[in-house]
Parts: sequence; structure tokens; C-alpha cells
Amino acid sequence: MTMNKEELLAKHKGYNLTNGHVKLIDIMGDDSDIVDAARVSYMKGTRPVSENTELIRYLMRNKHSSPFEMCEIKFRLEVPLDLARQLQRHRTAQYSSFNEQSTRYSIVEDAMAKTEANKWRKQSKNNKQGSDGYIANEWPNFTTEDLTNFEVLTDSTSQGMRLALYKEEQEAGWTPGEYLSYREMTLQDLAKDIYKERLMFGVAREQARKELPMSQMTIFYWKCDLWNLLHFQELRMDSHAQEEIRELANIVALILEDWVPAAWQAFIDYRLNSITFSANEFEVLWTLGNAHPSLDAGCQWLFNASQEERVAFLSSYRLTSLSERYDFITKLRKHISRVKEKNVHRPSKEGLSS
Amino acid sequence: MTMNKEELLAKHKGYNLTNGHVKLIDIMGDDSDIVDAARVSYMKGTRPVSENTELIRYLMRNKHSSPFEMCEIKFRLEVPLDLARQLQRHRTAQYSSFNEQSTRYSIVEDAMAKTEANKWRKQSKNNKQGSDGYIANEWPNFTTEDLTNFEVLTDSTSQGMRLALYKEEQEAGWTPGEYLSYREMTLQDLAKDIYKERLMFGVAREQARKELPMSQMTIFYWKCDLWNLLHFQELRMDSHAQEEIRELANIVALILEDWVPAAWQAFIDYRLNSITFSANEFEVLWTLGNAHPSLDAGCQWLFNASQEERVAFLSSYRLTSLSERYDFITKLRKHISRVKEKNVHRPSKEGLSS
Amino acid sequence: MTMNKEELLAKHKGYNLTNGHVKLIDIMGDDSDIVDAARVSYMKGTRPVSENTELIRYLMRNKHSSPFEMCEIKFRLEVPLDLARQLQRHRTAQYSSFNEQSTRYSIVEDAMAKTEANKWRKQSKNNKQGSDGYIANEWPNFTTEDLTNFEVLTDSTSQGMRLALYKEEQEAGWTPGEYLSYREMTLQDLAKDIYKERLMFGVAREQARKELPMSQMTIFYWKCDLWNLLHFQELRMDSHAQEEIRELANIVALILEDWVPAAWQAFIDYRLNSITFSANEFEVLWTLGNAHPSLDAGCQWLFNASQEERVAFLSSYRLTSLSERYDFITKLRKHISRVKEKNVHRPSKEGLSS
Amino acid sequence: MTMNKEELLAKHKGYNLTNGHVKLIDIMGDDSDIVDAARVSYMKGTRPVSENTELIRYLMRNKHSSPFEMCEIKFRLEVPLDLARQLQRHRTAQYSSFNEQSTRYSIVEDAMAKTEANKWRKQSKNNKQGSDGYIANEWPNFTTEDLTNFEVLTDSTSQGMRLALYKEEQEAGWTPGEYLSYREMTLQDLAKDIYKERLMFGVAREQARKELPMSQMTIFYWKCDLWNLLHFQELRMDSHAQEEIRELANIVALILEDWVPAAWQAFIDYRLNSITFSANEFEVLWTLGNAHPSLDAGCQWLFNASQEERVAFLSSYRLTSLSERYDFITKLRKHISRVKEKNVHRPSKEGLSS
Repeated sequence: MTMNKEELLAKHKGYNLTNGHVKLIDIMGDDSDIVDAARVSYMKGTRPVSENTELIRYLMRNKHSSPFEMCEIKFRLEVPLDLARQLQRHRTAQYSSFNEQSTRYSIVEDAMAKTEANKWRKQSKNNKQGSDGYIANEWPNFTTEDLTNFEVLTDSTSQGMRLALYKEEQEAGWTPGEYLSYREMTLQDLAKDIYKERLMFGVAREQARKELPMSQMTIFYWKCDLWNLLHFQELRMDSHAQEEIRELANIVALILEDWVPAAWQAFIDYRLNSITFSANEFEVLWTLGNAHPSLDAGCQWLFNASQEERVAFLSSYRLTSLSERYDFITKLRKHISRVKEKNVHRPSKEGLSS
Repeated sequence: MTMNKEELLAKHKGYNLTNGHVKLIDIMGDDSDIVDAARVSYMKGTRPVSENTELIRYLMRNKHSSPFEMCEIKFRLEVPLDLARQLQRHRTAQYSSFNEQSTRYSIVEDAMAKTEANKWRKQSKNNKQGSDGYIANEWPNFTTEDLTNFEVLTDSTSQGMRLALYKEEQEAGWTPGEYLSYREMTLQDLAKDIYKERLMFGVAREQARKELPMSQMTIFYWKCDLWNLLHFQELRMDSHAQEEIRELANIVALILEDWVPAAWQAFIDYRLNSITFSANEFEVLWTLGNAHPSLDAGCQWLFNASQEERVAFLSSYRLTSLSERYDFITKLRKHISRVKEKNVHRPSKEGLSS
Repeated sequence: MTMNKEELLAKHKGYNLTNGHVKLIDIMGDDSDIVDAARVSYMKGTRPVSENTELIRYLMRNKHSSPFEMCEIKFRLEVPLDLARQLQRHRTAQYSSFNEQSTRYSIVEDAMAKTEANKWRKQSKNNKQGSDGYIANEWPNFTTEDLTNFEVLTDSTSQGMRLALYKEEQEAGWTPGEYLSYREMTLQDLAKDIYKERLMFGVAREQARKELPMSQMTIFYWKCDLWNLLHFQELRMDSHAQEEIRELANIVALILEDWVPAAWQAFIDYRLNSITFSANEFEVLWTLGNAHPSLDAGCQWLFNASQEERVAFLSSYRLTSLSERYDFITKLRKHISRVKEKNVHRPSKEGLSS
Repeated sequence: MTMNKEELLAKHKGYNLTNGHVKLIDIMGDDSDIVDAARVSYMKGTRPVSENTELIRYLMRNKHSSPFEMCEIKFRLEVPLDLARQLQRHRTAQYSSFNEQSTRYSIVEDAMAKTEANKWRKQSKNNKQGSDGYIANEWPNFTTEDLTNFEVLTDSTSQGMRLALYKEEQEAGWTPGEYLSYREMTLQDLAKDIYKERLMFGVAREQARKELPMSQMTIFYWKCDLWNLLHFQELRMDSHAQEEIRELANIVALILEDWVPAAWQAFIDYRLNSITFSANEFEVLWTLGNAHPSLDAGCQWLFNASQEERVAFLSSYRLTSLSERYDFITKLRKHISRVKEKNVHRPSKEGLSS
């Protein structure tokens, strides 16, 4: 580690999230401890692996997990319940320890995660579980048809009143995002009000909490070893990860870069920016590179082919399902654009404030 | 197993929870597999442990976990999010596998856990994280004082209106529980309405879900080995466990009794109904049994002693803190009453319907 | 599963290893349970993933582990201690359960793993931790020099006697392998003799065992979920895995193919036969496919380049260390030869007998 | 922690084992971090648990594991393979990380664990998997009968020669222990000789190692969280644990006492020196304390009762098996003698040298 532990803890003592906070509490070990642990395995009878960075890269490339497990890190997090849940359901959580504020034991704070009017994200069309940009500032033209499965709007009168309300808001100059943020506030206020009212009526905390929303803030310590944290980073720095958890992962990235610079660079090269081809996919790539004047030309041909051509070609290499073909082309495009833009070395970290 | 796998799965094919549902999906192994696995360790050179039940009891008594791990069970659960969270945060979860409905991927069902008017539980005075009976049918005499930390009631006018509302409900013959259940419904309706409205505005599912309450129902598969399930049972059949999870544990108990009867009985004797004394506590018990005509008389003396006497006596055996003394007396009382009522063999399972 | 559980258990009821035995004991779940578990996550609001095989391939491709964890398998193994140790040290072991014969508790069997005269493997020159073919039938020309670090041969006399012994054996027509197998037998006989003698002198089993060799046979049950078993298979079916554990993995492969055929084929395509390129390596491949008339020609140029050329070229893409370049070229060669030989679909399983 | 990290690491920088070495490498956290983590759960709405030690004792008593998991420790161990195996097979190992010297990759050191002539332990009569004192200095009177299952002594001639050898050693003034240590040396010398010979013949390290004895020394790093290390300590400080691993546990105890003094004392009181009674056993104790003038008198009556009386009495409380009765009486005796000898607070640690 180029900076010592005190400097590291001081530098990363706290980051604000859009909703929440991350604090580095403690670390154990660094790059040199990875190397020490690995060298226990490579003693007499072996060629010297003279350089530490090279050894770390070798370990990462070959997925030798145990030397990386010798480093440990501890955070204090304040995040909404749904982010906490995503983190704790993670496979990585098996090797993590958590200490979380108990809502059976304690009365929750008034804090809930709020969404600014221009931060309502649009459902992605391609990615069933993702978002894609923000919703427009124009109001959609809703009809009573759109409201038929709203449980609380049971007749055409109540549906008509809802549409009239939208009209009003629109005419008053509110954007849809402003309306949704107002509604969020209404719901959060009611949830807090009812929570406190239940406590006032003497209801047990363990039951009073049952209508707390997933946006309720919670606090916990999270301890994790480096190998499993890197697994978390691989999944959560990905552009398909939910924005809130990606924001957290990008802050953790800043800490990792200072804490274990050699392991971090090896991770970026061999895992974060790597590309994996199935046996069938590699055969396709091989063919594209041989049947066309250049690999680039081959790939462009594939991207620009008609759907019929593409299906016929890829199916002949056993990529017979739509999702298999879609996933293949998507990852190929992504890596080719990375090569062309000479952008292979670093994940983006802009927009982070200490 | 006295009943075969098909019979077991048929018998336990589904149980309703107050809010939710439990279904036994599959099992692997039974009492005889515990014994087979254990016998691998006890071959030549050992005294025969001739009887299977005796061997299972020996293993349980001595916490030999691995033979019990050889049995596996799988459930399908429909439960509120907060119960799911409690289950998945459990240490046992490290040896469990879960497959849960994704609210990033899917639109949630309309179902949320409802509380009947007579089921609002009172905060326990002794147990900081528990409940104790139900709230009374009489309305408390709230004053504006009680409402001062309600965020949404910012002035004496709004506070006065709230008190007037309570008055009205009371005069209309509503109980506090009926009022709270009505409020619960209001909040759940608003939460559903806003969730659907967000989707209608095109908001991504991953973000639309953020105000879903902890009472939102979820569905998941849960696979667990027998040893870790018994650990779960020990914690969750306890009278201090939250009612909702105890209800689940009591149903799992019914299944375990049919599936692995010998292991289940051993668990009840050696773990569920066992009592552990610290070195200091055992010394107290020893003294009580020697200084009084009977152990019963000694314990009664302790229970009936004045607070000063009790503190002085227990402190002389190094039980110097209030919580240490409280925990000791509580567990002693519980086990003595169990002995006196000849009720040592079975946990209660009444009130369960298949 | 195309065959039912009884058929599966009957078909795979026992396999002999060179030293040891594998028996399938039980399974829970199959391909259809993977799909059931996965579908819990993909309900309303999603495009139908209509076909089960396609869904399983999607899950494998995207490393969605939890549905595969819903399947469980149990084996009974008889293997040498060193293979047991390798298996139990495995990361997979974290999700496995073991029940092994205790040598504290029991007297060990007389069985030790034996090596046939023509099965002494040569130390690999390239792979520091592997072997490469068998030792030759010709005797090496040893000198006293070679024997100087032999602890028990402390002077030139004893060293000379040893060389004379080799001479004798050679002249008697023994191969080096026959000599080594004879020496193995001598050592195993002495180890057994001393073990039994210690027991006869009343020495505790826990201490008598201390000179048992790693070739001592042991017996244990092994229970594992499918996802973690596949991880084991990926590492242990590899040509770099030790022959003894590869033999075990190849038998497990036969069982997996019958048990979960769709998951198994997906594993072969997306994991076992896949190739992963780092960001830097993909850039090299891209360049080779563009700068040469075909990708094949580009790769051949790289393979046939002089060492200076190769180092210069690869270093310019940041493959600056010898081991990085070596690993890249090795995996590229392997996958290209697989494509050229149209051998992309199945791992070899010959030589296995039920 | 009363001493800071540097002092702690300096004080515990190395301990010799009878065969091997233990070195404290690093720690993360201490008593105060346990408290910090726990307090995250106990915030508003709770009675203050004002004192840190009291809180730690509360957590230990109620088995709240996660705050203890927030502390982490790392050792470097040199131990024989069989001790390494026992450690790594441990349930605790699931939460541990290991980095061990690879005997596939490296040539092993010449070191093997040696047994001094007066340290050959006698097989315990009561404890099937334990030892009990040392073997006598008198030679047993062996007959050819005793030697019949010795594989290498196939006829009465060879058996007679072996008996003659024993006679000779005895007459030469050797003790049985001296003879056994001499035989140990012979076997270890042969094992080393054959290992080196195989390497000299070019045999792969992965195969050459197969006759290394379990006494072969190995080196590894071991990282573990505090909660799981305490679980290890509970099992391995026990008088039934094998002497070699107990020696290790007793050294770890010295480190724990300095590192986390409050957690360590709580562990001793609530776990190491605690006693657990099954429901049936507690009923027996209750009866003994009531039916006799004192609890002591009741227990003495039980200990001194004839076998028939004892079986009849205990069976009437459902302690129907021999092993159940034996285990109950053994633990009761142990704890009563501890109370009588006023020896309840500390495990013995004598004989340890830094």
C-alpha cells in the first residue's frame, strides 16, 4: 500500500450517497499480505516469481482466491432497506458479517430515501430488470383504460377524477417527475405518521414497523474479505446493476484503488474488463475473422446483417435461441467499442465526492 | 422415517399462515441416513453403538453436526418481506439456498400482510424487542403532548384535529384496533396505488418498488440442511421470537416430527428444552441446593427474596449486573415450572391447521 | 431428468477408481427443479422464457447460481487421504458436508493406494505443479553427487552402496518403475507394521496414526449442491488437475450427464469449454484479426514469431510479463485447435468403466 | 484492548509447539469494536446498556454472534499434516481462510513431527477417541498370538523373530517408548529417503508425496473471525481434544486474553465453563436436590449408588441408555468438583513458554 493505514482511513472517512452514507472503518492487510500468503505455497522447487505485482496478476488470472481472502475490510453504511437487502442477499454475504440496526429493538429514525423530480428512471425496454434514462417531462395521455387495474379506483367516476387531477397538475406547470416526487412525499409522510401513531397506541415495535417502506434508511456495519468484495464489485459496478448499488460500488472502488493498487489493477484487467466466449461463440468469432478481410469487417457484417441472415448464421453455430444471440452480440459490441475508443483500462468514477 | 417420502409430501403439501403459505417441496434422507453417515466414523476398534435412536441422541448431545447435515429439505414460502428478511439474515442462511421473486424483474402481486383489529400486539415492558399480549379495547387519553414529535402534525391546530378524530372514532364505537387496521388499509391502498401509478408513468420496476411496505408479500424457495434447520427451530420456536416467524417454525416442527422422528425428539430433549448454566450460575444453584432443606426451597427463597437480599446474594457469586441476574432468574423459573408441570417433553403445537 | 431417480441410482451404483471407489447415494431435484426455482423470480411483467433448456442456458451464461443450488447430490467415496484432503480443502467444500471415517476413533483398514510400475508420472517442465507422461524405462546415470542431500546417506560409502543397488536392480532386468513400486511396497509394509505394533503396545489410536502415509485409504460421505459441484468439475476436469482427482471428476461427469442433462450441456458450453480474454488480450486478438488476411493467419503469425518479435508485440499491448504471455498463448492455442478439430462439444470420458 | 496492536504483536510474535510453531501475524478490532457493532442495533427506544463489559457479557450469554465476527485474527502455523487436517476440517473452517504450502508445487521440508520416548500416550479405556496417560516402562508379555494380524509377519518364524527382537531390546535396557521412538525414526527416515529418491528419478512432486506421513510438517496462514475462533477454542481446549491441538488452543488462549479481555472472560464464564442439562437431566437434578438433605448429598448418593440402583433411578427419568447416563454423570462430577475446588474461573494454561 503506498499510503499507510492511518492515511487511508483519514482519506476515506466518509462519502455521501444520493440517499445514505459510506464510511471506511478498518482494514487488515494489503497487497504485500496477498503476496506473503501466496508465497507460502511456492517455496523450494519452484521457479522464482520474482515480482510482487506479477504474482498478484498471476493469482487473479488463475482465480487463486485464498491469498486475496487474507485481506479484510470493514465499512459503516447508511442506506435504504432495499439496498441493504440486495447487499445482504448477495452470495458474497456468505463471507461477510453484518451488524444492523434492529427495528424490533429500536425505534427507527425519520429518514427515508427521497427521489428528486428529475431522477425518476424509465423502465428499460431491452433489459427486463433495468432502467434506461429518465421519464420525459411531457405528460402521457392517460385514459380510463390505463387505470382499470388500480385497486382503489373501482369505478369510472374515481378513474375520471384521477385523470382530472393529472390534468390539473399539468396545467399548473408541474412535470410528471414533480408529481411523482410529491406523491412519494405523501406516502412517506403517511408511513411515518402511522408508524408513530402505532407506537403511541402502545403497539410493539416489531409489529409497528410492518408498513415501513423499502426506502426506510437503516444503518449497519459490513465486514468482508477482499476476494468476496471483488466479486461484489464485478457484479455491482456493471452497467446493468441498479443505480443505487452501483453508486456504492463506485465509492468502494475508490477505496480499493488506494488500499490494494496491484490487486485492483489486476481485477480490472482480468475480471471487470474481461470477456468470456462460450465454445460456440468462439467458433463464430473465429469464422468471422477468417471469412472476412478483417475481424472488424466480420463483426460489422454480423451487426449489420438482416435479422434472417443473422439468425441463420448464428444458428448454424448452435446459437439457436434469441437470448443467446442477443447476449453474444451485446457483449461483442461492448468490447469492440471499448477497444476502438482505447478505453480499456479504467472504469469510470466521475461524479464522486469525498 | 415411519412414513415414506410420497406420504410425507402429500401430508404436508400446504399450510396457511396468518399472512402467507408454507409448502413442503422435497426432502433428501431421513433418520437412517444420519445413522449411516455417522457409522462411517465409527468402524473397527469401537464399542458397538447398537441402537440407531441411541446413536442419534449421542450425536445430538455432543453436537456432532455433520451426520445431520446429510439430510436436506426444501420449502416454498409465501410470506411478508419483513419475515423473508429475518429468515435470510439468519446465520442458518449461510447454509441455505434461496430463490426469491425479483421485484426488479417482476411486477409485485397486490398482496400485503393484513392485521386484524384484535391482533395489534402490545410492546413488552420486560423484553425490549418483544410484544406482550394485545392492546386494550379502551382508548388511551392522548393529549397534544403525545403528538409533538409527529412530523406531519406541525402545529397545535393539526394536533387538535387528530385528537378530535380519535374522539370521533371512539364515539362511533370503534376500538383502537379497528382504527389501526383501518389506517393500515389506508396506507396499503396508497402504497399500491402509487406503485401502479409509477409503473403507468413508465418508471422502472427497480425504482417503483421503493415505497413498497415491509408487509408486501413475496415468494421464495428455501433449501436447508437438517442441522441448520434445527438451529433455526431452536431460535424461532422460542417464546421470545416474533409471532410471525414462530408461526412458521411451529409448522416446520410438524414436518420434522414426521420426517426425522428420532432426530426431532433428540433435539427437543437436548436442545429445545435444555438449560445452560454459566460456571457462576451453577455455583449459585449448588449453594441453593445445599443451604436449604430442598433445592425447591432454595430456589423459592431466591425468587421471594427482597431485591437487596437477592442482589447481595447473587453478587457474591459474581452475578454483578442487573441483566445477568435477570436472565438467570428468568431461565430458572421457566425450567422449574416446566418440571413441576411435568411438561418437559413436547413444545406446544396447538392451533395449527393443515 | 430423462431417467427416474431409481434408474439413476441403479445405473451409477458404483465405480472403481485406480485406488478407491465412488458410489452415488442420493439426489434431490433435477433440471425441472432448476427451472421451477428460477421461475419464481420471473413472474408477471416479463417476457416469457418459454423453453426450459433455454432458461437453464440463460441462467448458466449469466452465473445465476441460486436455481442450481436447489439440486443436491450425495456420494460415498473411498479414496487415499491426499485426495480426500484436496477435496475437503476445496472452496466448494464450504457448501459441502462431509462425514469421514475417524482415525482417532477407529482402527484404519489395511488399504493404501498402490502405484503400478508403469504409472510413475514425470514432473512436468512447464507446469510447476503438474506431471507430464511417465518416467522412462531406462535407468538414469546417477552419481554420488545426486545423493548428497539424502539425509540417511551421510557418507560416500553409503552413497556408493545405493548406486551399487541401482546397478544390481538394473542388471536384474528391473525397470525404474518396478524398483519404485517395490520401494513403495516396502514403505507401506513398514508403515502398517509400525501402526499395528503401536496399537499392540497400547498406544492411543490418535497418536498411532501419525505415520500413516497420505496414500492410506479413507471413506467418507460427500454431499454437495449442483452449483458448487459444477465449480468443482470445472477445476478438476481440467487437464492441469492431478490425475487422481481428474479420474474422480470424470466419473462425476457421467452421473451429471444423466441426472441434469440440460444443466450439464449448458455447463460444458458456457463454462468448461469457454475462453476468457482480459481487456488487453482481447485487444491483441482484435489486432491480429485486423492486421492479417484472416484471424487464423494472425494467430499463426503470433505462434511462429521469434521470441523477440512476440515479446515486443505483446508488450505493446501491456502483456509485459512472461507468465502473462505464456498463459495467453497457451489458452489461445488450445481453443483454436479445438475449433479446427471440430471438437467443441464434449469433454472426453473414455476409459471409464462402470 | 489494554495493550495496543504493536505491543500485542510483539508480545505474541512466536510460540514453539512440541512439534511446530505459532505466530500471531495480525488482528483487526478489539473489545471496543464488538461494542460499537452491537450498539448499532440498540439505539433509540431502548434502555441504556451503560457498561461495555456488561454488554459483551450479554451478547455472549445470548449467543449474539455478529458483533464478535467484527474482529478478525491471522496466524502463521507450522504443524504436522494431521493437525492441519483437523483444523481445516473444522466447522469453523467455513469462516476461515487458509493459505497452505503446496506439496504439488513445492518440495517438502525435511521436517516431521517426532515423539519423545516418554510421550507415547495410552489408548483411553473410557473415551473411544482419546488417550489417557502414557504407556508403561515395563514391557508387555507379547505372544505370537498378538502378532497374527500383522500383514508382514506371515509365519511363526517371522513372528518368533519379532518377539526375540523385543526381548533383546528389553535386555539392552530400552523402554518400550524408546523402542517406539526408534521405530518412528526408522519409518520417517525411510519416508524421506523414498521421497527424495522419487524426485531424483524424475517423479512428479504431486505423486512423489503420496507416502509422506501425517507427521510431515506443513506451513500455512490461518485467518478467522473471533466468534468462530471461540467456537474452535471451546472444542479444542476441552480435555477430550487431542493433545497436539489442545496445545495449540492453549497458546491461542494466551493471545485472546490480551487481545479481547472482556470477550475472553465472558467466553470462559458462559461457554467454556458452562454446563448444559437436557430437560430430563434437569429433572434428575431437581429431584436429587429435593429428595436429599442437600444437593451435594443427593449427587453423592447418585455417584455411590449401586449400578442397579443408578440405572433404575435414571431410567425413571428417561435416561434409558448407557451412554446417556454415563455422559450425565461425567459432566456432573466435573462441574461439582470445579465448584468444590473453587476453580471456576480460569482454564489452566501452565506449561506454556513464549
